Amino acid sequence: MTHTIREKTKLLNRVRRIRGQIEAVERALDQEIGCADVLQLIAGARGAINGLMAEVMEDHVRAHLIDPAHEPDPQRAHAAEELIDVVRSYLK
Amino acid sequence: MTHTIREKTKLLNRVRRIRGQIEAVERALDQEIGCADVLQLIAGARGAINGLMAEVMEDHVRAHLIDPAHEPDPQRAHAAEELIDVVRSYLK
Amino acid sequence: MTHTIREKTKLLNRVRRIRGQIEAVERALDQEIGCADVLQLIAGARGAINGLMAEVMEDHVRAHLIDPAHEPDPQRAHAAEELIDVVRSYLK
Amino acid sequence: MTHTIREKTKLLNRVRRIRGQIEAVERALDQEIGCADVLQLIAGARGAINGLMAEVMEDHVRAHLIDPAHEPDPQRAHAAEELIDVVRSYLK
Repeated sequence: MTHTIREKTKLLNRVRRIRGQIEAVERALDQEIGCADVLQLIAGARGAINGLMAEVMEDHVRAHLIDPAHEPDPQRAHAAEELIDVVRSYLK
Repeated sequence: MTHTIREKTKLLNRVRRIRGQIEAVERALDQEIGCADVLQLIAGARGAINGLMAEVMEDHVRAHLIDPAHEPDPQRAHAAEELIDVVRSYLK
Repeated sequence: MTHTIREKTKLLNRVRRIRGQIEAVERALDQEIGCADVLQLIAGARGAINGLMAEVMEDHVRAHLIDPAHEPDPQRAHAAEELIDVVRSYLK
Repeated sequence: MTHTIREKTKLLNRVRRIRGQIEAVERALDQEIGCADVLQLIAGARGAINGLMAEVMEDHVRAHLIDPAHEPDPQRAHAAEELIDVVRSYLK
């Protein structure tokens, strides 16, 4: 993970929001609010983790495999973009 | 969520472990350890959230719909058990 | 699965559409179209299977556990509706 | 998808098995076997689709981005292997 500072900040903000969502689940369980609300909070946290997964995978491809913005071979650049699109749409 | 104390304690312990896993992701991002390790930590946290989801759904069925252990109609009791099995195997 | 004829027809139509989606994946692989298109077809088939899973689970709750439309106890009826909502939003 | 013949055959066999699993779901719904069995069949088909997705993504990385077996830069080769490992463990 020797990515750019900007990416690092973005990922850290994202994971801190997820921590906040998990803390909300904890409070909801502790205060015994309705099951349905607890389940919605858990579903939200899970969606956010999938989003984080997709973003880290995307950054990994750009930083360590092929960055479509700087790859001289247009076919490889295109293939990397396709992979990133799939990761985004499949995991989010 | 007016379930038993025992269930509540179990769920709270589970969600606290997940919070610990999210904090480990945060530290890993902050300390810039390798992508692959970050991705494994995220995958672990996501699996744990799926497990929590399955457990809260199971408790919801038992506490508010049909508890197989106390349902007088054997077919309904069996149907509730089947649902719980599917939730467990599909989400975990 | 001794549900209504209407539900059965709906589920059979749904599973036949999924078979068609799988056959499209097969043709795409056979004709060697681009990876990205194959991946999108697979993602579509997977989404459709999740939808089928959610619908069969919902029918199972209504037919064998508690049908909110005919349950005399309003709290149980409400709990069944909540469960169905979660299954729908979480799996689809 | 201009991958090797061997990969193509493997993927075609895989997708044909999935078609067989979907046909089994169709028969199970048509013959009105128990919900729990239908749900297990659907869960199996979904797992198989996730496996297919992982394999097509892996082939895409090897064929169009970076093939770890032939990449001269060891860091890029390692990064591609890490990505493939994550795709496998996360999707399967």
